[in-house]
Amino acid sequence: MTISESNQHAIPSDTFISEFIDTLTFNEDGLIPAIAQQHDSGEVLMMAWMNAESIGETLRNNRVCYWSRSRGKLWRKGESSGQVQLLKNFRVDCDADTLLLEVDQTGPACHTGRRTCFYRVVEGDILKTDSEPLIDPETLYGK
Amino acid sequence: MTISESNQHAIPSDTFISEFIDTLTFNEDGLIPAIAQQHDSGEVLMMAWMNAESIGETLRNNRVCYWSRSRGKLWRKGESSGQVQLLKNFRVDCDADTLLLEVDQTGPACHTGRRTCFYRVVEGDILKTDSEPLIDPETLYGK
Repeated sequence: MTISESNQHAIPSDTFISEFIDTLTFNEDGLIPAIAQQHDSGEVLMMAWMNAESIGETLRNNRVCYWSRSRGKLWRKGESSGQVQLLKNFRVDCDADTLLLEVDQTGPACHTGRRTCFYRVVEGDILKTDSEPLIDPETLYGK
Repeated sequence: MTISESNQHAIPSDTFISEFIDTLTFNEDGLIPAIAQQHDSGEVLMMAWMNAESIGETLRNNRVCYWSRSRGKLWRKGESSGQVQLLKNFRVDCDADTLLLEVDQTGPACHTGRRTCFYRVVEGDILKTDSEPLIDPETLYGK
């Protein structure tokens, strides 16, 4: 896969990355929540977790890498599905305990094949599904 | 304070709220992360935590109420500052372990007086502040 290098996040030095990570507040498992937002449309795509190593990899590579709590290993978003997240901006909140990643998401972010993981909304007494899969999940993971 | 009741989230029944809460995955502290997004502009304003009680209160009142981990009590957003979050849509993700609240935020969401808590962005070797306070925090909390 070829990824355009234009208009991307400028890659910080290893020294900066290390010092930046030291300013963050991780939970007792060494993790920090990271919200992924499509940089141009503003869609909130998903929330996942990062550890120090995945933050370093993300900042160095301009491709988003999380920490998978269920698998207990680095989760290079799109490594199975091909649906990568190119990093546009890496933000941190006022308390330095939550990250906001502005990304360019290829296709669906959600393992169900939907663009966003937040496809269910409370409407009165109904939990309504208001978006449909862009791609059959079997196509995403079945290859 | 008068809040317009028009174009708001339809209030679910207590039965639905109770059953809905039972479908959510809370962490070992009984909490679930909740992202607040301005409903019309798409700005990600903040991330905070909710427990079952704060979810119930939010859905019943159409005003966002979090759980404050630092204070160990319900945090009715805006109760000190006046900067309330009116609920527009209450979303849940595919794994039912993260919430997305589409809100109408009065003024700043951040305790620094900024619109959003995510006002710092990595640019090369600089952590840049790219928005300024709308209101002096002393004005927000000093009254």
